Amino acid sequence: MAGKHRQDEFSYIEWIKSQTKHRAGTLIGIGDDAAYLKSPQKIIVTTDMLLEDIHFPKGTSPYLVGRKTVAISLSDIAAMGGSPLFALCAVALPESACMRYARDLYRGMKDMADLYSIDIVGGNVTAWKHPLCTCSTLIGRIPAKGPIKRTGAKTGDAVLVTGELGGSVLGKHLRFTPRVKEALTLNKNHTIHSMIDISDGLTQDLAHLVERDKLGFLLYEEAIPVSRAAKRLSRRTGKTALEHALSDGEDFELLFSTSRKEAKRISATWHLPTRISLIGEITRSGYRLRKTSGEIVTIEPKGYVHFKK
Amino acid sequence: MAGKHRQDEFSYIEWIKSQTKHRAGTLIGIGDDAAYLKSPQKIIVTTDMLLEDIHFPKGTSPYLVGRKTVAISLSDIAAMGGSPLFALCAVALPESACMRYARDLYRGMKDMADLYSIDIVGGNVTAWKHPLCTCSTLIGRIPAKGPIKRTGAKTGDAVLVTGELGGSVLGKHLRFTPRVKEALTLNKNHTIHSMIDISDGLTQDLAHLVERDKLGFLLYEEAIPVSRAAKRLSRRTGKTALEHALSDGEDFELLFSTSRKEAKRISATWHLPTRISLIGEITRSGYRLRKTSGEIVTIEPKGYVHFKK
Repeated sequence: MAGKHRQDEFSYIEWIKSQTKHRAGTLIGIGDDAAYLKSPQKIIVTTDMLLEDIHFPKGTSPYLVGRKTVAISLSDIAAMGGSPLFALCAVALPESACMRYARDLYRGMKDMADLYSIDIVGGNVTAWKHPLCTCSTLIGRIPAKGPIKRTGAKTGDAVLVTGELGGSVLGKHLRFTPRVKEALTLNKNHTIHSMIDISDGLTQDLAHLVERDKLGFLLYEEAIPVSRAAKRLSRRTGKTALEHALSDGEDFELLFSTSRKEAKRISATWHLPTRISLIGEITRSGYRLRKTSGEIVTIEPKGYVHFKK
Repeated sequence: MAGKHRQDEFSYIEWIKSQTKHRAGTLIGIGDDAAYLKSPQKIIVTTDMLLEDIHFPKGTSPYLVGRKTVAISLSDIAAMGGSPLFALCAVALPESACMRYARDLYRGMKDMADLYSIDIVGGNVTAWKHPLCTCSTLIGRIPAKGPIKRTGAKTGDAVLVTGELGGSVLGKHLRFTPRVKEALTLNKNHTIHSMIDISDGLTQDLAHLVERDKLGFLLYEEAIPVSRAAKRLSRRTGKTALEHALSDGEDFELLFSTSRKEAKRISATWHLPTRISLIGEITRSGYRLRKTSGEIVTIEPKGYVHFKK
């Protein structure tokens, strides 16, 4: 960006406009003071900031940062059981960044947006003396049934999770596929009591899922879908692969609760390639793990401290 | 924020929730994966990032940064002739920041939001090793007539501006009142051809207003509303107060064009305390200034380089 001049920012925005063909719902897109959009009667909106050394290590390709910028908000839209419509992206570029870097960043955002047929309708770009920081805002719609909230879990509910967990830091945190299709299928075809996406770690986010309803959970050790990355990482860290699966952040999988009966219906009818595992149950109180041996232990929800462990 | 732990971020969010009483249109507010909102059939949306050393000097009170975070996006909503409904705010806090600093930041955002009866419905907070960075997203509605765009100026249009210009860096850039009421009055009661808010500077933003329609402008020196701050600043910088009024950024005043006839109607019926000045006209080509002496000179639109001059 050779940062010193707004001219660079203007020509970057002109380039972005040249790359963009807005869809029908976008009445005014990039280039005015605000975007003007056709909207459903109810919308969901989320905003997320991505920071160097926290959400991506220094030296990460700008393409992957751009991709994650949009993906992380898509994951929030998924966690509500919604489908995405529009994105806005704001960027603070390091002054040292060149135009190619800035373009690669946008290409990452655009590719992720295209994957879900959503429009990037606006944004903001400034160069500064500090590391890269991006911020995405996503607007989505919700099926007629309404959104799936974090609250609503019931004692006796089955706890389920998509995909595999742990070791995301080895690469998945930059390359994950937000579970938009999976969430929509769950919301449309099933009655889901509560849902969240895993950003802080399985036990931490499961605690978020039950804390406002003052409930607890019991996880089944043998049912936790431990990823190969968790196993690889455990060789380096001295922690077990299970510990990684339980506490690593940024898996961006869906974690949800539903009745035992509905959980059976889900596993009987599930047709998407993403694995779904029944990993535990909602209890009256306490955060517990039933080990493969049968022993039940209390677990402390571990806050994911991103790259700062 | 004593930054090291997500716990601090969680307790900050809990405190924010305790400060917030959502309005009727907010079906799900702060605390879930996304906000769930009642929406008009068409919305306007804008996002803006605020960066230390670019948009506010190091040492600025967090309250004023919070205030400006929301105000800058409100100004974009105003520039479209819309009224604001919902805000989302994302924050990267320096690790050194304490909880009081974080709360003051939110108080600034909240006070600015309350001034326009809008809800802060969501956000994101992370601590990092670098300076404060905030990002606001605003969603608004547009009167039945539709938005006022940057394009649409016609040759012969009168060019008008709200308030007074120049020297914003002396304080106004942190304390300005976004021209939401003025813009709504203009959009509802008048036919405005094109509008923008002044963030890069009068001549630069007027160039933005005419460039896509491939038109020009002629400004009248004696009509430019030069602020007292521009005069104060000129004593320090050696530039004239007029130069400051023409090129200083971050005035956040409305700059718009309308027919000569409508401009007369505006000045005859204007009832808000904010001054409105007719400062020039739209021409076929060229960016020119008619000096008080009658001489006409070409002016170069000067990009505002924020604090980096």
